[in-house]
Amino acid sequence: MYRKASYGSELDQLIQLLSKLPGLGPRSARRAALQLIKRKDALMRPLSTALAEVAEHVNPCSICGNLDTADPCHICDSPRRDHATLCAVEDVADLWALERSGAYNGGYHVIGGSLSALDGIGPDDLNISSLIERVMSGDITEVIIATNATVDGQTTAHYITDRLKDYTVTVTRLAHGVPVGGELDYLDDGTLSAALKSRRIF
Amino acid sequence: MYRKASYGSELDQLIQLLSKLPGLGPRSARRAALQLIKRKDALMRPLSTALAEVAEHVNPCSICGNLDTADPCHICDSPRRDHATLCAVEDVADLWALERSGAYNGGYHVIGGSLSALDGIGPDDLNISSLIERVMSGDITEVIIATNATVDGQTTAHYITDRLKDYTVTVTRLAHGVPVGGELDYLDDGTLSAALKSRRIF
Repeated sequence: MYRKASYGSELDQLIQLLSKLPGLGPRSARRAALQLIKRKDALMRPLSTALAEVAEHVNPCSICGNLDTADPCHICDSPRRDHATLCAVEDVADLWALERSGAYNGGYHVIGGSLSALDGIGPDDLNISSLIERVMSGDITEVIIATNATVDGQTTAHYITDRLKDYTVTVTRLAHGVPVGGELDYLDDGTLSAALKSRRIF
Repeated sequence: MYRKASYGSELDQLIQLLSKLPGLGPRSARRAALQLIKRKDALMRPLSTALAEVAEHVNPCSICGNLDTADPCHICDSPRRDHATLCAVEDVADLWALERSGAYNGGYHVIGGSLSALDGIGPDDLNISSLIERVMSGDITEVIIATNATVDGQTTAHYITDRLKDYTVTVTRLAHGVPVGGELDYLDDGTLSAALKSRRIF
């Protein structure tokens, strides 16, 4: 005998919305709701405000697709970055990961996903034409393709390389190899053979 | 070289708040934020509104501690429930779990946690006195102690039983045993011996 508990419609609604967040199921959404109610002033009201603020002010950059309150975004707009280099990433999360690494100082282009025959995602569903247009406009000397090392990601990388082959631009991709701090014993064969193939003189 | 990525202060703030929810770390908070921005009208704005609504309208019931927009809550106020029976639970989540089971039709009392010498939580930090007062007021015939089957939960149960022993009220606790659908092979010894001890005629 299963009966839906009624927590009151406001709470029900909140729990249902929280459970739609990635990483939260119905059970953890209930726990999150209780936690929020216990910390109304420290967490619940600020979160409500932050959500409204971001919904209002944060939008994709019309040049690169990064999310920012300004358009063009602070990366496209920065005079201290090297705008002759573009790094093509699948998603904004990948852009953030590269920014966190602090190892890159050029511009970006967010593709918005990867080609996938299974999910019916073709080139027209992604921001690939706008990447080609940016290269055509002339000032770009290098495009670093930093799609994921998955089958779909690599297919996308090959497709973009193919589309760019008529332009005078260097197309590069991220190196494959042993992750820093990684143990060989736990690595898959593909990574190991890639690391062997790309070995360098010590 | 680790550099904090700047997503813009609004996004930073949102991600930081999201990462304080139980079940979400910094990484899943970033994913959640991206998901929210992708679904502004379906998820982000409704969530902001729901949070504000609940913060404004949902409060603990002054009688039992349940969370509701009304005070007394819909359980304490319901004429169809048996208010001579009280079920003492540690947390509102436990109350919800019992309500979902649909197996209980009495009133509740939310203790607000369990006694814990390690965490320095004593009887005065919990809603135990208010439980005794409700029993003293006279109309209660049974108190079901449904604290967790942990050491702290059982300590709390013993403490409450002790405090109630001078009143003409039956104090009961939930049965221990094999969970419905559970396999004996995976059960701990404590549960198995409890299930054996409380065996019943088929």
